[in-house]
Amino acid sequence: MSTGVTAARGFRAAAVEAGIKAGRTDLALLVSDRSCVASGAFTTNLAKAAPVRVSAEHLKHGSARAILVNAGCANAATGLRGLADARESAALVAGALGCAITEVLVCSTGVIGVNLPMDKVRAAIPAAVSGLSSEGGASAARAIMTTDTKPKESARSVDLGGVTVTVGGMAKGAGMIAPSLAPLHATMLAFFTTDATIDRATLDRVLLDAVGPTFNRISVDSDTSTNDTAIVLANGASGAQPIDGPGPAYNVLRDAFREVCLDLALMMIRDGEGVQRIAQVLVRGARSAEDALRIARTIADSPLVKTALHGGDPNWGRILAAAGRAGVAFDCDKVDVHIGDVFVCEGGAARAYDEKAAHAEMLKDPGRLTIDLHAGDASEAMWMCDLTKSYVDINAHYRT
Amino acid sequence: MSTGVTAARGFRAAAVEAGIKAGRTDLALLVSDRSCVASGAFTTNLAKAAPVRVSAEHLKHGSARAILVNAGCANAATGLRGLADARESAALVAGALGCAITEVLVCSTGVIGVNLPMDKVRAAIPAAVSGLSSEGGASAARAIMTTDTKPKESARSVDLGGVTVTVGGMAKGAGMIAPSLAPLHATMLAFFTTDATIDRATLDRVLLDAVGPTFNRISVDSDTSTNDTAIVLANGASGAQPIDGPGPAYNVLRDAFREVCLDLALMMIRDGEGVQRIAQVLVRGARSAEDALRIARTIADSPLVKTALHGGDPNWGRILAAAGRAGVAFDCDKVDVHIGDVFVCEGGAARAYDEKAAHAEMLKDPGRLTIDLHAGDASEAMWMCDLTKSYVDINAHYRT
Repeated sequence: MSTGVTAARGFRAAAVEAGIKAGRTDLALLVSDRSCVASGAFTTNLAKAAPVRVSAEHLKHGSARAILVNAGCANAATGLRGLADARESAALVAGALGCAITEVLVCSTGVIGVNLPMDKVRAAIPAAVSGLSSEGGASAARAIMTTDTKPKESARSVDLGGVTVTVGGMAKGAGMIAPSLAPLHATMLAFFTTDATIDRATLDRVLLDAVGPTFNRISVDSDTSTNDTAIVLANGASGAQPIDGPGPAYNVLRDAFREVCLDLALMMIRDGEGVQRIAQVLVRGARSAEDALRIARTIADSPLVKTALHGGDPNWGRILAAAGRAGVAFDCDKVDVHIGDVFVCEGGAARAYDEKAAHAEMLKDPGRLTIDLHAGDASEAMWMCDLTKSYVDINAHYRT
Repeated sequence: MSTGVTAARGFRAAAVEAGIKAGRTDLALLVSDRSCVASGAFTTNLAKAAPVRVSAEHLKHGSARAILVNAGCANAATGLRGLADARESAALVAGALGCAITEVLVCSTGVIGVNLPMDKVRAAIPAAVSGLSSEGGASAARAIMTTDTKPKESARSVDLGGVTVTVGGMAKGAGMIAPSLAPLHATMLAFFTTDATIDRATLDRVLLDAVGPTFNRISVDSDTSTNDTAIVLANGASGAQPIDGPGPAYNVLRDAFREVCLDLALMMIRDGEGVQRIAQVLVRGARSAEDALRIARTIADSPLVKTALHGGDPNWGRILAAAGRAGVAFDCDKVDVHIGDVFVCEGGAARAYDEKAAHAEMLKDPGRLTIDLHAGDASEAMWMCDLTKSYVDINAHYRT
C-alpha cells in the first residue's frame, strides 16, 4: 500500500538497517522521480544541528529530489566534522540518483554531541537507493522513530478540476517537543509530499498556513530541539492545474495539508514521552491572538497543570496561576475558567460546582480547559499532555 | 532556644492548630514588641491572592507590628470575600495587640480557590496571641509548611560598632517555585526579622540586595505562585547605630541578610517537591548579566536537563539545546560546556572526555554545570534541582 509520504504519485521511499541505532531500521530515504519544488522550515534554536544548516543551504536553490533521514544520532554540536558528514551524506545520495548535491536534503535525530558513524552511512546508502519503492512510506515512517512508540503517517486526496491531487506526510517526535520553526513555530521532523503543481512562493505559504495552526500548537515538554525540521516536496506528477497564488485551488490544497498536519501533530502529542492523556487549552476573550497563544502555551507547559491533568485533578487554581505569570496584561478579576463543560471559576474567583463532574471532565481524553479573559475577541488553542512518571523514566535513562 | 525569626531581640512567635490543615499546626503569628520599619516584595503573578493585595496596601504605611500566616488555604481566587477575610484576620490580630490594622500583615499558602475558614481563624487568633514566645521561631517555621518536609530557619549575628545585631528568617516553599517578586524576582513565603535600626528606604534596599542573588536564583518547577511574599521587619531593639544608607554598616547588615537568605533558599530547593539532587548552573562570558541569567534560568527549568540530572547522565547536548532556545543571541560555535571539572564541549562541538568522570560529576550533590559563551564578561548562576517521579506523585494527587 502507498501510504504517508509515498501516497502521492511519483514518490518512493526505503528504510534500511544502517546500524546507527541497534536492532532496527534507522535510515530512511525519500525520493521523487522528478525534480520537486521544495520548501522547509527549521528550528529557531541557536544550537542548530549540522544537517539543519546544510539542508537550509540546499533549500535556497528551491528544488529537491530526495531527503535522507537517520535516527540514533542528531549530528548536532559536532562542529566542522558534522557539517562535512552531512554534506558527504547528501553527496552520496546525489551520486546514486544522478542529481545535484543541493537537491538532496539531510536530517538527523537522536543523541546530541555524537558524530555520525559515516562508515555505516556510506555502506547503507546503496541499499536504501536500491530498496526504493512506491510502497515504502510505512517503513520510512518507522525508520525515523526515536522514543516514538508508533510510526506516524497520514495522507489526503482532493479533487482539483477533475484531477486527484494527494498530500502525504510522516513525522516523528516524542520528547524535546515545543516546536519553534522560523518563520513559523513548528515541529520536530515532519516530511510532506504532494503531486500538486505549485511554485515555490505558494508552497512556502502552504507550509506556513498548514503547520502554524497544527504543529505550532502542541507542546510535550517545552524543550525546542536543535534538529526540528519540516520539509515539503511538490513534484507536479498529478498533472493538475498549477497553483500559483491565493484562490480556490490554493484553499483546497491548504486544507488537505492542514488535515494531514493535524493528524500527525495529534499523533505526535499522544505519543509524547510517557503521555497518558491529552487536553486542549483554549484561551478566549484575549486582546490579541498573540496574547491568547502566550497564555495557552504557558498553561500547556506548566508542570503543575500537567501533573493535575495526570491525576485527573480539576485544580483550576493552577490554570489561573499559570495564566497570571504568562507575561500578558489582563484583569484577573474578570477571568472565567471551565473544565470541560463545568464552570469552575467566575470573575477570578471560585464558584460552586460539582466536584465529581469536574473530575470526570479531567479524566476525559482529550480533555478541554477553557479560560476566558473577557478582554477582547481573540482566541487561540494549544494541545497539551500530562506529565507522568514514565516521562521521568524515559529521560533520566536516555543515554547512559 | 530563640531561633529563626525570634533570634533577634524583641520578636516573639507562636504556632497553633487552627484546623485549616488537619492534624498539625497551621497558623503562625509573628509579633514585634515595638513598631517596626517594614519592607516587602510580592509575586509578579497577575493572579495575586487576597492576602498579597491586603499586605501590599498595609505596607504602604511603612510600619508593622505583626505577621499572621496560615497554611492549608491560599485565599487566592476568592474575590471580594477573600479580601474581606484577609482584612478581618488583620483586624482581629490588631485588636488583640492594640495596634493599627495596617500594622498587621497577612499571608496564606495552600490550595487556590478555597475560602479561608474564618470561624477557625477567629477561634485560633486569641490562642496564638497568648502563646507568643521569644522561643517560638521554630514552631512558627513548622506551622507555615505545606508540602515542605522540613522547617526552614536561619539566623546570623554581627557586630555593629560593638553592639550585636541579629538577622533571622524563616521560609516555606517546595513546589510552584520560580520566584518572581516585584521589584525583584524573589521567593515563596519568607519572613525576616532584625533588631537593627534602619530607615524604610535602606531596608527596601537591603531586601532587594539580599533576595536578588539568593531566592531569585532558585527554581523548582518554573511555576511562579499567586502568593509569593517576602517581608522583613526591623525593630531597632539592638540599640545599635542607625543605618541610613550605603556604607560599612549597611554592608555588614546586608551580608548577614544574604547569608540568611542563601541558607533558606538552598534549604528550599533541596526540599523542593520530590528533589533528590541539586546543581548550580553557571553561565559565563555573556554580554550582559541579563543574558546570562536568562540562559541559566532556561537550563535550570528544562525538563530534559532536570531529568538528566536525576539520572546522573552528563547529557550536555541538552544543556546546549536549552541555552540555544533561551531567546538570547550568541554564537553557538564558541560555546564551552563543563560538567563539574570535566570539559565536555568546546566551541559548540563534542570533545573527547572521560565519560565515567563526567558521570561521577553528575552524581555529585550539589553538582555544577558551567557554560561559557565567550561573548563578554558577564556571568550569573542559578540553582536547579532534578525532576523525579516523586514530583509527579506529589502533584498528581495534591487536592483530590
